[in-house]
Amino acid sequence: MTSFRNRVNSTLQIRIQKKGEGISFYINIFLSILIFLNTIAIILHSIPSLRASYNQYFIDFEVFSVVIFTVEYLLRVWSIVEQPGFHHPLKGRVKYIFSVWGIIDFLAIFPFYFSLFNTDLGFVRILRVLRMLRLFRLSRYFHALRIISNVMKAKKEELVLSMSFILFLLFIASSLMYFLEHEIQPTVFKSIPDALWWGVNNMTTVGYGDMMPITHIGKVISGIVSILGVAAFALPTGILASGFAEHLETPKSTKCPHCGEIISVAKK
Amino acid sequence: MTSFRNRVNSTLQIRIQKKGEGISFYINIFLSILIFLNTIAIILHSIPSLRASYNQYFIDFEVFSVVIFTVEYLLRVWSIVEQPGFHHPLKGRVKYIFSVWGIIDFLAIFPFYFSLFNTDLGFVRILRVLRMLRLFRLSRYFHALRIISNVMKAKKEELVLSMSFILFLLFIASSLMYFLEHEIQPTVFKSIPDALWWGVNNMTTVGYGDMMPITHIGKVISGIVSILGVAAFALPTGILASGFAEHLETPKSTKCPHCGEIISVAKK
Amino acid sequence: MTSFRNRVNSTLQIRIQKKGEGISFYINIFLSILIFLNTIAIILHSIPSLRASYNQYFIDFEVFSVVIFTVEYLLRVWSIVEQPGFHHPLKGRVKYIFSVWGIIDFLAIFPFYFSLFNTDLGFVRILRVLRMLRLFRLSRYFHALRIISNVMKAKKEELVLSMSFILFLLFIASSLMYFLEHEIQPTVFKSIPDALWWGVNNMTTVGYGDMMPITHIGKVISGIVSILGVAAFALPTGILASGFAEHLETPKSTKCPHCGEIISVAKK
Amino acid sequence: MTSFRNRVNSTLQIRIQKKGEGISFYINIFLSILIFLNTIAIILHSIPSLRASYNQYFIDFEVFSVVIFTVEYLLRVWSIVEQPGFHHPLKGRVKYIFSVWGIIDFLAIFPFYFSLFNTDLGFVRILRVLRMLRLFRLSRYFHALRIISNVMKAKKEELVLSMSFILFLLFIASSLMYFLEHEIQPTVFKSIPDALWWGVNNMTTVGYGDMMPITHIGKVISGIVSILGVAAFALPTGILASGFAEHLETPKSTKCPHCGEIISVAKK
Repeated sequence: MTSFRNRVNSTLQIRIQKKGEGISFYINIFLSILIFLNTIAIILHSIPSLRASYNQYFIDFEVFSVVIFTVEYLLRVWSIVEQPGFHHPLKGRVKYIFSVWGIIDFLAIFPFYFSLFNTDLGFVRILRVLRMLRLFRLSRYFHALRIISNVMKAKKEELVLSMSFILFLLFIASSLMYFLEHEIQPTVFKSIPDALWWGVNNMTTVGYGDMMPITHIGKVISGIVSILGVAAFALPTGILASGFAEHLETPKSTKCPHCGEIISVAKK
Repeated sequence: MTSFRNRVNSTLQIRIQKKGEGISFYINIFLSILIFLNTIAIILHSIPSLRASYNQYFIDFEVFSVVIFTVEYLLRVWSIVEQPGFHHPLKGRVKYIFSVWGIIDFLAIFPFYFSLFNTDLGFVRILRVLRMLRLFRLSRYFHALRIISNVMKAKKEELVLSMSFILFLLFIASSLMYFLEHEIQPTVFKSIPDALWWGVNNMTTVGYGDMMPITHIGKVISGIVSILGVAAFALPTGILASGFAEHLETPKSTKCPHCGEIISVAKK
Repeated sequence: MTSFRNRVNSTLQIRIQKKGEGISFYINIFLSILIFLNTIAIILHSIPSLRASYNQYFIDFEVFSVVIFTVEYLLRVWSIVEQPGFHHPLKGRVKYIFSVWGIIDFLAIFPFYFSLFNTDLGFVRILRVLRMLRLFRLSRYFHALRIISNVMKAKKEELVLSMSFILFLLFIASSLMYFLEHEIQPTVFKSIPDALWWGVNNMTTVGYGDMMPITHIGKVISGIVSILGVAAFALPTGILASGFAEHLETPKSTKCPHCGEIISVAKK
Repeated sequence: MTSFRNRVNSTLQIRIQKKGEGISFYINIFLSILIFLNTIAIILHSIPSLRASYNQYFIDFEVFSVVIFTVEYLLRVWSIVEQPGFHHPLKGRVKYIFSVWGIIDFLAIFPFYFSLFNTDLGFVRILRVLRMLRLFRLSRYFHALRIISNVMKAKKEELVLSMSFILFLLFIASSLMYFLEHEIQPTVFKSIPDALWWGVNNMTTVGYGDMMPITHIGKVISGIVSILGVAAFALPTGILASGFAEHLETPKSTKCPHCGEIISVAKK
């Protein structure tokens, strides 16, 4: 029994799968394809003509998928205690359920059960698309995922701070623009929240063109904000670049082919 | 008395606050929340329906906030002489008042008193949003703030120069576009200042679409300017990235191979 | 015969050409100019007035070019067996034909022959512009091309992963926006595929302005997506920057401190 | 005489000026201000109301400026032979005249004399704005200018190649879009040159919104091009970042305060 539970756990937990590991490989491939097809189904279901013609197929596929994902979820909760650090029958399972991956797994099935007992809410249905997040776990890019997340953790303070700068600049610019343009364009710059819509589209350089300053001073401020916006986004880029560079600078070592000793290689 | 003043100063100056440092911690938390609520109040007050219904509450909250900030400001001015480098009763206080943080603290209360004696000016009211800047001081990201500002100081020359390039390119492009498009679109490209509005939105890739070249040569120049604009903004990004990398790479101390002493290495 | 084939092969394979290497130099210059002129011809042929007046010249030039390129292609297939690694008369030639450069060379002539036997398809004609890719081979920037492609290979995992993040964010944002805006703007946000058009133009900050959220929550999400979009594109930039830096920092050889031999250091 | 010419030359050549160097300092300040005022004058002259009222003042100021710049230019040509590397009376002067700075100095006066003998050409007048380029020479950021230009020289091959990639992608995308959209929107995507206008505004994410694909396949290609465009511009950014980092990695040395020996400091 424990041995079977252990096999279930290792089958579901295996991340980088190689062909030749038997059934575990095929189960993971099957789940990956199912997740991918679910994503496609959500997109296609939103197209009116397809929805009208094939609605029953979409519902059938959804029921089928949710059954599979529910079984998988329950097996995960059941077998997680075989995982190091999750051994406690209750605490280990609770720990998994509230872990990031546990929540993502739960969100893959929750919207279906929720809408059984409630009126169909668009907002809940959208959660289904989060199923796609699970593809990251199965990915063979798991190594790269860890590098990126390590860099972001190492640079968390600088990144949060530069994002704070950006948000602060956004807020100051939008408030200023409201005070400058409200008198002239009362129906466009109706309030600071409205001006924030202009602000975010100006600073990120989206520039929809539905809100624009028309006063001279407003245009000057807008131009300065655009330039500062682009420059401000250079900060996180620079921080990430140095983060990745730093990550790689752990001393390299190599084995001397002549004497067999391990030597560290200094950077030029 | 001096002892009390010392405690007031250290309470207000403490930057990275930890729980368990008693009243100082709670005062800073209270001030932070008050600053944050003030920011929210400014935003909400700009929404016509909220302003119409709850105007008195906004005024009451503003009066309450300004009283608190005024007391805080006066306490800071009074107690700053306990701070190293600010010991002189007059010069120390003047030094604080005209320091960056002193000005920010003053701008948090000035607009209120200014509008008591004057007609209500939108431009002065906007200064209130600068209160939010004070959140940076209390922040636990103070360390990251110093890193970012050190990097920007170390790279000041290159950053100023690349910004000069950008401004120069902006000016040349806008003037050129004025001469090219003025004849064809006299109501759009009315003057070089008008063309600068096109220029800044083209170079930063905001692209509102309210001003566009229509001649062939104008379109060619516009395209070149867009590409150069994006490339030009790559310069500050690259400079910042190398700045952050450099910051992390310079060892703080090294061992002299001649005498074996540990020496600290100044940044160039 | 073999000696002649060898000379044909080395003439066609030579990449960085210097003046004074005789006919090989002039042949490569001639082919480069012909490729460039073909590109210009494709552009000019699309202009209605030029097409109307000079159609025969375009056809003549096209026939002339295709004859040259066909001869060149056949000579390449014939002589490739002189190239190291392509010695097998059949396998070597098949290997070339299905190599990247082989396919590009084939695409330079295929559309012409294809349209002889079929109705003229615009989609096939477009393949002709791929001829321009061949200019990269003849380029003296071949060294830089190898550096860039090495960096991209070394960072492949991180780049693929950050592109996956971007696509995932794009998909989530577009689906969410569809569910939020579909009720209010049923003719604009018709389906998730339609919303993806908004999504990609928002995240890359193109911002055409033909599709925009109008609900408050939609605008908030849109703003967050814009900021995350710009931030997400900072990831590949940072990865590439560290990739280029790493490329330059790895010493190619070092001295083993144990035995004193010079050893070459393989890239990780 | 030679001694006076030497003083003229050193006065005009001095780049980083410090107060206390006497008349040389004031002459350079005066020239800088004059160049700056000229730039302002060009902008203001383009505003119809100002041009109508103060046209004579603009002309007077222009004549005054050109007289000063002409005298300065002639003095430079005359005294340049005192500069190391320019000693030959004829070759030295020709070398200066056709140097980058020599041409910039000439362009500052040429448009005025040109328009005396010709009808007033807008295109020639625009050259006057190039006067502003001279400000870079007088700048105290001359050191930073050299760093940036060194980095760009060191990375020239990679930068040219990534720009070639961008141009190639632009051309392929625009041609493709022409073939895809021409049938549906014959008045919008009239020809490939017209499509290039769409392409450059899409790839640089300006996004004016005057030209847009409307077919499904066109929108998909457009989205891919936007993403590739943003990613492509990450290449020069990454190259520049590594260039700046590399530039700084020249071995640092410091003087040991204990034994006085100069030691090199290894990077961490």
